Amino acid sequence: MQRRVFLTTSALLGASLLGGCKREEKKSFYINRGRKIEIKLATSWPANFPIMGEGVEEFAKRVAQASNNEVIIKVFGKNLLVPALGVFDACSAGQIQAFHSGPYYWKGKNAAFSLFGGFPFGFTSNEMNAWMMYGGGLELWRELYGKYNLYPLLGGNTDVQMGGWFRKEIKSLQDLQGLKMRIPGLGGEVMAKLGINPVLLPAGEIYTALDRGTIDATEWVGPALDIKMGFYKVAKYYYSGFHEPGSVLELTFNKRFWDTLPQEIQTLITSLANEMNAKMVYNFQDKNAKALQQLKKFGVKLKEWPDEIVKAAKEALFKVIEEQSSKSEDFKKLWQQIEPYWMQNRAWTKLGLKNYLKMRDG
Amino acid sequence: MQRRVFLTTSALLGASLLGGCKREEKKSFYINRGRKIEIKLATSWPANFPIMGEGVEEFAKRVAQASNNEVIIKVFGKNLLVPALGVFDACSAGQIQAFHSGPYYWKGKNAAFSLFGGFPFGFTSNEMNAWMMYGGGLELWRELYGKYNLYPLLGGNTDVQMGGWFRKEIKSLQDLQGLKMRIPGLGGEVMAKLGINPVLLPAGEIYTALDRGTIDATEWVGPALDIKMGFYKVAKYYYSGFHEPGSVLELTFNKRFWDTLPQEIQTLITSLANEMNAKMVYNFQDKNAKALQQLKKFGVKLKEWPDEIVKAAKEALFKVIEEQSSKSEDFKKLWQQIEPYWMQNRAWTKLGLKNYLKMRDG
Repeated sequence: MQRRVFLTTSALLGASLLGGCKREEKKSFYINRGRKIEIKLATSWPANFPIMGEGVEEFAKRVAQASNNEVIIKVFGKNLLVPALGVFDACSAGQIQAFHSGPYYWKGKNAAFSLFGGFPFGFTSNEMNAWMMYGGGLELWRELYGKYNLYPLLGGNTDVQMGGWFRKEIKSLQDLQGLKMRIPGLGGEVMAKLGINPVLLPAGEIYTALDRGTIDATEWVGPALDIKMGFYKVAKYYYSGFHEPGSVLELTFNKRFWDTLPQEIQTLITSLANEMNAKMVYNFQDKNAKALQQLKKFGVKLKEWPDEIVKAAKEALFKVIEEQSSKSEDFKKLWQQIEPYWMQNRAWTKLGLKNYLKMRDG
Repeated sequence: MQRRVFLTTSALLGASLLGGCKREEKKSFYINRGRKIEIKLATSWPANFPIMGEGVEEFAKRVAQASNNEVIIKVFGKNLLVPALGVFDACSAGQIQAFHSGPYYWKGKNAAFSLFGGFPFGFTSNEMNAWMMYGGGLELWRELYGKYNLYPLLGGNTDVQMGGWFRKEIKSLQDLQGLKMRIPGLGGEVMAKLGINPVLLPAGEIYTALDRGTIDATEWVGPALDIKMGFYKVAKYYYSGFHEPGSVLELTFNKRFWDTLPQEIQTLITSLANEMNAKMVYNFQDKNAKALQQLKKFGVKLKEWPDEIVKAAKEALFKVIEEQSSKSEDFKKLWQQIEPYWMQNRAWTKLGLKNYLKMRDG
């Protein structure tokens, strides 16, 4: 392939004329007027946490690269600058300029926030991103976060999560009665209606509690992150999930700070956040598939919920939504926006993706 | 929410000190040294083609915004600068700097290229992106395209496609015998082994051929694009698909041109292409869901393939892969890379996403 290449851009002409200076040229397309933008970003994850923590670190590197090192995002792992669950308040108050976390953590501030994170039997990650970007979700989210002086961007998605690890096999609704399970959020509220006793535990205490039988079950995320927690050593039954089908992660900015950023930097950060948002799903896909192979070697028993549990959980979901709607006007309004979009997208996903996967994987 | 906001970045200090100049500040974070980079990008789609054409237009706008209008990508719809299917050669020769198209169009140059576009019963869009970004796919693609002086980036994905429009209902393998169907690529080769007579037709001639019975069936993309072609008026049976589960679109550069771009511009373009790549899937999700509602109102009959056709198609796929592998060393090597990743990812998708969709949508 020794064709002659005709290139007409001024960039190339510049490079040709300068000859040996090409390498230096590459380093300095832009000249900055001597300002630097420095952004302190705190996360709710440990430094270098797989997939989620790594994703935000990579995002920060790419912002630096694409801005000629003039926009510097310093990422602080949990508790290094502010407590893991203190990032919302710290950012709202301007002590940090940005944080990476999940909107369902802040449901105590506003019940509606949990819906931005996802809900049982809710959007898949692709449906969630469709709703956010093309169905009005982002605008609604920004409106509600605006009340807290915050401006959210999409910052990732866990993709479909597993239902959790159980010490004993669950063959019926009866088997769930009184079980103590670590499960947070709307999923926990649905499971409570099925007879589960949901408990909250710090990440570092879950394994021991499961090992000792202080709890009977726990959910976490999916194969890639669960395998690192070692749950397979003390609970052999691993259930497919319905409670967190595509949990949203957020990259949220202090709004007053965001508004001062130059237009081109806002676009750069938004687009690179969208890239991170997507890549995290692909990374989860890749790492979950690899970890599942390992888990199978460890003798984990992969299980599906009995039909009566799925049916009861769907009924419970609508009760939970009714309860939340009666307590919170924001939740109620948001659900009214979400429901028709959810129904419409389920119909297409069933016809397209679900029928495809049925044909491919039986 | 009247909290005092403490912001410490120099950008904000600059903005504060300059007061009324803030708006102007926003326009000129960077000072360019007087160069502009201009990129001619030709597509294989008509100007403003929904989702795919719009996506690349939006990408070009964002590159301009994020670079302070110093990187200008001019998008030319099909046949405006080079013929729709002439973009590969024109870019390889340096007549244009970039193109937006699909790698399966170039299988005549190298049979392996069709695998970068997807294959029947192959990767979903998320699995494809996982393979590309985390499973080594992109590196293999760049190696092969490098032989043609080309450098590909991910430029979108159609997500799962529908199996096509049939004038008569297909109840058995027997019903397929001798049917003339417009279906290209590896899907066409699989269908040929099932007794279909695959034909190729320019987009503008498909509707009339289907209306007159010159062809008995056609596939296109999915509800959002198919509805605009009007096929529902002349063929009522619309089948879920297995032949193009996540077709890749490409944003490919002339490699010698790409190599001259400054590092920060390479990063910017790559990240914004990754954003386009993801957003196109979410946009297809949104628009397909909306169009499906319309199609239902028009009385379209939504159908699934009989089991014997699915089974025969899977067997045919392996024959097609064997044939292609015996004819092309590149195809054979690439398939050997793809197959284990495909098997591994199917196992996770089945446990996670497929089981979830079964629970949610029955």
